[in-house]
Amino acid sequence: MAGSSEPTRVMVAVNESSIKGYPHPSISCRAAFDWMLSKLVRSNAAGFHLLFLHVQVPDEDGFDDMDSIYASPPDFQRMKQRDKIRGLHLLEHFVNQCHQLEIKCEAWIKQGDPKEVICSEVKRVQPDLLVVGSRGLGPFQRVFVGTVSEFCVKHADCPVITIKRKTDEAPQDPVDD
Amino acid sequence: MAGSSEPTRVMVAVNESSIKGYPHPSISCRAAFDWMLSKLVRSNAAGFHLLFLHVQVPDEDGFDDMDSIYASPPDFQRMKQRDKIRGLHLLEHFVNQCHQLEIKCEAWIKQGDPKEVICSEVKRVQPDLLVVGSRGLGPFQRVFVGTVSEFCVKHADCPVITIKRKTDEAPQDPVDD
Repeated sequence: MAGSSEPTRVMVAVNESSIKGYPHPSISCRAAFDWMLSKLVRSNAAGFHLLFLHVQVPDEDGFDDMDSIYASPPDFQRMKQRDKIRGLHLLEHFVNQCHQLEIKCEAWIKQGDPKEVICSEVKRVQPDLLVVGSRGLGPFQRVFVGTVSEFCVKHADCPVITIKRKTDEAPQDPVDD
Repeated sequence: MAGSSEPTRVMVAVNESSIKGYPHPSISCRAAFDWMLSKLVRSNAAGFHLLFLHVQVPDEDGFDDMDSIYASPPDFQRMKQRDKIRGLHLLEHFVNQCHQLEIKCEAWIKQGDPKEVICSEVKRVQPDLLVVGSRGLGPFQRVFVGTVSEFCVKHADCPVITIKRKTDEAPQDPVDD
């Protein structure tokens, strides 16, 4: 068996909670991460190398602070800087856990449409496996929100595993995460 | 980490080669098995328990031996027996490999429509993960042959991982396997 070979490189797509916001990870990406640790990595920390990708969606309409005044280029710089820091806090959550478990990992942030960026990063980084969480929405809910996981299963250039969050962890509105 | 807990139960759907017939495994199910060993199980044999399911499709029109005469109930019994033996030889291939690698496993045969039976066996056996091979057909070829893997990703009650066979392993007609 390939015990002596290169570690298995697993890319894990993570995002922030739509209910709690940054730096809290979404329910479904936490479920995917926990599942992967307990079912795949198990006690074999040296056999895996985790690659955490967080894709930030450029915020078009949802300003938290509508009463801020953006009067100068530095204001926009600060806003971008703030988003970056939030993303880093999210990644820190996962990197800290890996550090405690002595699992090698890397983490980075990209901007754009999550499904497109995840697939293009798979092409670039060439992991052995992509792990994505899924809210497990029904067909009706899916029509309106789209699903990143379905797109990745179809288009990513590596094996993909979709982990649904547990039913008892789903919030009142299943579109939330 | 869950190193001390129950092993991860992985169901692997296996089928015979459409080119070479029994007892040869299909290219795509061999690819799925090899990938799983090298990328997931790795050196952690004790952490995994493999469950091999082979679904035999009741043979409606393709008699190998058209000149046989089925004249009595025992003839049909023998034919069923023969199919069973072929399926067992296929499973033996995988069980032998697991035995050599000291990975615990089980294997069994069911009859029916592979995609339906795989999903109903997932419901019954409740594995942690289902691994299926895929020929990686394009949309045009898929229309005519259907794909077991796509159905399982949608309908199986557990995480599913689809492993495509390597491009250089695809036979001349990609529908073959």
